[in-house]
Amino acid sequence: MKIQNWILLVLASIHPAFALWPMPRTLETGTSLVKLSPAFKIDVGIAKAPQDLLDAVSRTTTRLHTDKLQRLVVGRGSSDSAALARAPSLTKLSLSLTSAGAKNVKSIMAETTKDITERSESYSLTLPANGAQASIIANSTLGLLRGLTTFEQLFYADAAGTTTYAFQAPITITHDSPAFPYRGFMLDTARNFFPVADIKRTLDAMSLVKMSQFHWHVVDSQSFPLTIPGFPELSQKGAYSSSEIYSSADVQDIVSYAGVRGIDVLVEVDTPGHTAVISTSHPEHIACAQATPWENFANEPPAGQLRLASPATANFTAGLLTSIARTLPSMLFSTGGDELNVNCYTQDAQTQADLKASGKTLEQALDAFTQTTHGALRALGKTPVVWEEMALDHNVTLSNNTVIMVWISSQNAAAVAAKGLRLVHSPSDFFYLDCGAGEWIGSDATANSWCDPFKSWQKAYTFDPLASLTASQTSLVLGGQQLLWTEQSGPENMDSIIWPRAAASAEVFWTGATLPDGSPLNGTTALPRLHDVRFRMVQRGVNAIALQPKWCALRDGQCNL
Amino acid sequence: MKIQNWILLVLASIHPAFALWPMPRTLETGTSLVKLSPAFKIDVGIAKAPQDLLDAVSRTTTRLHTDKLQRLVVGRGSSDSAALARAPSLTKLSLSLTSAGAKNVKSIMAETTKDITERSESYSLTLPANGAQASIIANSTLGLLRGLTTFEQLFYADAAGTTTYAFQAPITITHDSPAFPYRGFMLDTARNFFPVADIKRTLDAMSLVKMSQFHWHVVDSQSFPLTIPGFPELSQKGAYSSSEIYSSADVQDIVSYAGVRGIDVLVEVDTPGHTAVISTSHPEHIACAQATPWENFANEPPAGQLRLASPATANFTAGLLTSIARTLPSMLFSTGGDELNVNCYTQDAQTQADLKASGKTLEQALDAFTQTTHGALRALGKTPVVWEEMALDHNVTLSNNTVIMVWISSQNAAAVAAKGLRLVHSPSDFFYLDCGAGEWIGSDATANSWCDPFKSWQKAYTFDPLASLTASQTSLVLGGQQLLWTEQSGPENMDSIIWPRAAASAEVFWTGATLPDGSPLNGTTALPRLHDVRFRMVQRGVNAIALQPKWCALRDGQCNL
Repeated sequence: MKIQNWILLVLASIHPAFALWPMPRTLETGTSLVKLSPAFKIDVGIAKAPQDLLDAVSRTTTRLHTDKLQRLVVGRGSSDSAALARAPSLTKLSLSLTSAGAKNVKSIMAETTKDITERSESYSLTLPANGAQASIIANSTLGLLRGLTTFEQLFYADAAGTTTYAFQAPITITHDSPAFPYRGFMLDTARNFFPVADIKRTLDAMSLVKMSQFHWHVVDSQSFPLTIPGFPELSQKGAYSSSEIYSSADVQDIVSYAGVRGIDVLVEVDTPGHTAVISTSHPEHIACAQATPWENFANEPPAGQLRLASPATANFTAGLLTSIARTLPSMLFSTGGDELNVNCYTQDAQTQADLKASGKTLEQALDAFTQTTHGALRALGKTPVVWEEMALDHNVTLSNNTVIMVWISSQNAAAVAAKGLRLVHSPSDFFYLDCGAGEWIGSDATANSWCDPFKSWQKAYTFDPLASLTASQTSLVLGGQQLLWTEQSGPENMDSIIWPRAAASAEVFWTGATLPDGSPLNGTTALPRLHDVRFRMVQRGVNAIALQPKWCALRDGQCNL
Repeated sequence: MKIQNWILLVLASIHPAFALWPMPRTLETGTSLVKLSPAFKIDVGIAKAPQDLLDAVSRTTTRLHTDKLQRLVVGRGSSDSAALARAPSLTKLSLSLTSAGAKNVKSIMAETTKDITERSESYSLTLPANGAQASIIANSTLGLLRGLTTFEQLFYADAAGTTTYAFQAPITITHDSPAFPYRGFMLDTARNFFPVADIKRTLDAMSLVKMSQFHWHVVDSQSFPLTIPGFPELSQKGAYSSSEIYSSADVQDIVSYAGVRGIDVLVEVDTPGHTAVISTSHPEHIACAQATPWENFANEPPAGQLRLASPATANFTAGLLTSIARTLPSMLFSTGGDELNVNCYTQDAQTQADLKASGKTLEQALDAFTQTTHGALRALGKTPVVWEEMALDHNVTLSNNTVIMVWISSQNAAAVAAKGLRLVHSPSDFFYLDCGAGEWIGSDATANSWCDPFKSWQKAYTFDPLASLTASQTSLVLGGQQLLWTEQSGPENMDSIIWPRAAASAEVFWTGATLPDGSPLNGTTALPRLHDVRFRMVQRGVNAIALQPKWCALRDGQCNL
C-alpha cells in the first residue's frame, strides 16, 4: 500500500499534468515555462470563420487573463517566479482546420447538434517550449473548441496575477478525441425551478470539462415550467409561478448558449407518467390526478399520469411533444417513460373504458401510445430517448435507434444491450448526485435517501462503461451522465452538489479506460487534477465544493490514507 | 398512520403558525389580517436607548419591507388579497423594558456577552387584531431583540410586494424564553477558509432563529488564520495565504456583528492536539510535526501536537491563549482538547526527555499543561471549554464550571453529567453537518464518511437534551449546537450545508420538549414552519437548501408518507 503510493507519487512528479480534465488521449509534456506575451493573439486561420468560433476564441482570450488561477502547490504563484523571469513569451496560438475539415466549415452550434454519432470533436495541440507559435488543428470548429478548452487549462497566473504562463512546455497532444460521444449532465427543473442564469453557469462548467450533452428534464408532476408553442396553458397553469417559466425565447437562449459551447440539449418531456401537473390545464387527459394516498398511485407526490389508452390523449401528447421538439435543433428528444404506475390506470374508470373499447391490454395500449408519440417525433427526424423501463419492463416496440437511459441499476445495461438497443449510462448506483441527503418525504428521523449512500466522485470515477458487455455490444454505448433530481435542490446548492463531482463521468467517458501512459484511470492520480479543475471553476464563479482541506489540495498525495 | 396524519392536519389548520421558528413557549393566535401602515414605526420607549438596540429596530423596520416573503400556500401572496383590502393598519410597535429591566439598561452586546447562565432573553409580545399598537416587553435589550426577531416572522408580503401583513392576529405571546441558554453553531475555519462576509451572513441566519452562541473553531492543524496579538508569526506563516487571515480588526468586527445580534462568540484555539501548523513558526513546540504516515500520529493530516510536557511550550501556549482571549468579550473560551494522539509523544524524543526530567507520566503532564492554560484563562475571568475527551478519557483536573462539548456520541453526555460537569450537546450522531458526503482521504470508491449517514434535519430535530440524565443533572445542560467541520466545505457550499438544518437544534434548545399546546415537538408539524424559515432565509440572501419540491412546500402535509 505504502509502496504503491510511493510509486504513484513518483509517477505524478514525472507527469504532473495537473491541469487537464478530462485527460487527453495522448499527452507529452516537458518542464519549461512559457508565458503569454502582452501581444498574445489567437489567430483563426479559417476563411469566413463562423461567428460562434470567433466568440469562443474571444472567450478563451479573456479567460487566459481572468482565470488568475495560481498553481496548486505550496507557494502557489510564487513558486515559479524565478523561472518565469527567464521564460520565453508566446505571441500566437493558431487555429486551423484540416483540409478535409476546411471543405465544409460549419458553426460550432451546427457541429454540436449533429447526430450524436456524427460529431467530430477531435483535435491536436502543440505548445512549443521556445515561444514559437502554438497550434490547434481539428476537423471541425467543434474540435477547435475542444482544443481551446484544453489550451485554457494549461495556463496559470503568477502571484501578482499579472503574468499568465504554462509550466509544462513543450506540450504535445498528437490526438485527442472522446471515447464516447455522449458525456452529459441531467438537470431536473420541475421539482424546483432554476433560473436561466443558473443553467447557463452550469453549461459553462460543463463545457470546461468537454461535456457534450445537457439532458434537460424540464417538466414533471410537480411543475410545468416549459412554454410549448400552441400549448401556453400548460405552463400558465402548471408552473410554480409566472416568474418560474422558461419562455420560448429562454429555451432558444439556453439551446444556443449550450450549442456554441459544444453542448447539445436533449429536452425531456416525461410521459406517460410524471404528468400530474398537466391536470391543472387538461384534467381530461390525466388519470388519478392528485389521488391520495399518493404512494398508491405514484413514486412521488403528486400522483397523475396521462390516459395512455385514450386516443385523444395520445394525439394531445404527440402534439405537444412535436410542438416543442420542432423548435429544438437537437436530433435527440426524450419522451421519458419511467415509473409507470399500473394501479393508477386500474383505478381510472375512463382508462378502463378506453381499454375495453379498444380491446387492448394496458401494455398494448402503452405500445400504441408510444408508437404515436415516437412516430410523431421520428417524422420530425428526431431520435427518441426513453428511460430503461420502456425497454426492459414493458412490451413496447422501440425503433432500433432509440436511446435507452439506464438508471435503476448499472447492472441493467447488459439487458438493454442484449436487446440490441443503444444506451446512455445514467445509473443511480454511481451517478445520482442527489443521493445521501436524507429522506424528503415526511419527518422520519431514521430514514435515509432511497439511493443512499452519497455517490462520491471516487465512486463515479470507477464506473466502467463496458462492464458486462460483449465486444460487439460496445458500440451500443453512447456514453453516460451524472444526474441531479431536485427534490432537495435548487439554485442555492446546485453548483456545490454538481461540481466537481459531475466532472468524474466527463473524464470516464472522454478519456476512456486508460490514461495516455497506458495505465488505467485511478482516483489517486485523478485527485490533484480534479482539485485543479474545481479551483478553476471557482475562479470562474461556479461554486464547486472543496474536495479536501486546502492543505491537501496544495500537497498532492500527502492526505491519502 | 393515516389517521394520525389526519389528526395532525387538523391540528395544523387550527394552529397554522407557520411563521415562527423557534416556536415560542406560549402562543395564542387568531385569524385576522393586520397590515403595516405606510406610517408604521417602531417606538423605543426607553430613555437613552443603546445604539445597538436602535440599530436592531432599524434592521427590523427595513426587513419588514424587504423580506417580501409571500405565504407558502397555493396562490401565495394572492390568497389573502380580498381580506387584505379590509384589514386594519398597524401604525406602531412599542418596545419597552420592565421596570426591573429599565433600572440598568445595557446594550444588546453587553447583555449577550454576560455569563451564559445570566443572560435574559425573555420577552412578551402582542399584536392586536384591530390595528391598535403592538408591543414587545422584555427585561433586557437582548429580550427586546428576540421579540423583534419574532415580530419579523409574523409578516408576509402580498402578491404585488407592496403590502406587508400578518394573518394570524390577534397574536399573543405571554411569555417566551429559551429552554437552554446555549443554542449554537460551530464553524471550522481552518480546514478551509471563510471570508468575514460569509461568517456575517451565517450570523444573520443564526440570529433569525435566535441562536445565542457562535463556536468559532478558528485554527487547526491545516491552517492558522487567526492573528494573535504578540504572535503575528502564527498566522503569517500558518495561514493558507496572506488574504486568508482574520486580522485583529476582523475578529472584533465579527464579535461585534454577532454581539449586537444576540450571539456570543466562543473562540476555540484547539490544544494540545490539532496544532501541526504551529510548527511553521515555532517548530520547537511541536512534536511529530508532519510525521508520516500521518495516520500513525493523528486522526487527520498533517500530524503535529504541542509538546505538552515542555514547560516552555505550556507557557507559550498559555501566552497565546490569553493574548487572544483578553481581546474577546465572551466569558467562554475553548482550549479544545480532542483527539490527542499518544504515539506522537511516544515517538518524540524531546517529550520523552521532558517527561523523564519532570518525573511525570504523559497524563500527569497533560494535567499540568491544562492547569497552566486553564489557570491563565481563569485569571482573565474566562470559563474554559473543552471537548469531551478531557473530561472522560484523561486524568485532567477540571474546575467545576468548565464546559464540556460532548461530540463523540450523544450517549456520552450522561458520563459527563455524572462527573458533575456542565455540558453542551454537540453529538456527531445527531448534529455533525458534514457527515454523509463521502470520504475525503484518498480515492477509495467504497468509503463513506466516518460519521455516515447524513444527519438530516429530521434526525437532529428528535434530539432529546435531557435523555439519560437525572433530574438533578438537567441543570448541567447548557444547550447544544450543530457543527460544520470543513474538510469538504468552503464558502461555496456553507449556506446550503448549514441551513436550514442547523435551525433544528435552535428550536430543540429554545422551545424545549413541548410546543405551546403541550404536545411534544414533532417533525410533521415542524416541517411547514421550517420551510417558512428556509424561504425567509433565501429572501435574505442566505442560500438555504430546499427541503422538498416547492409543490410540497406550498401544500402542508400532502407529501408526507
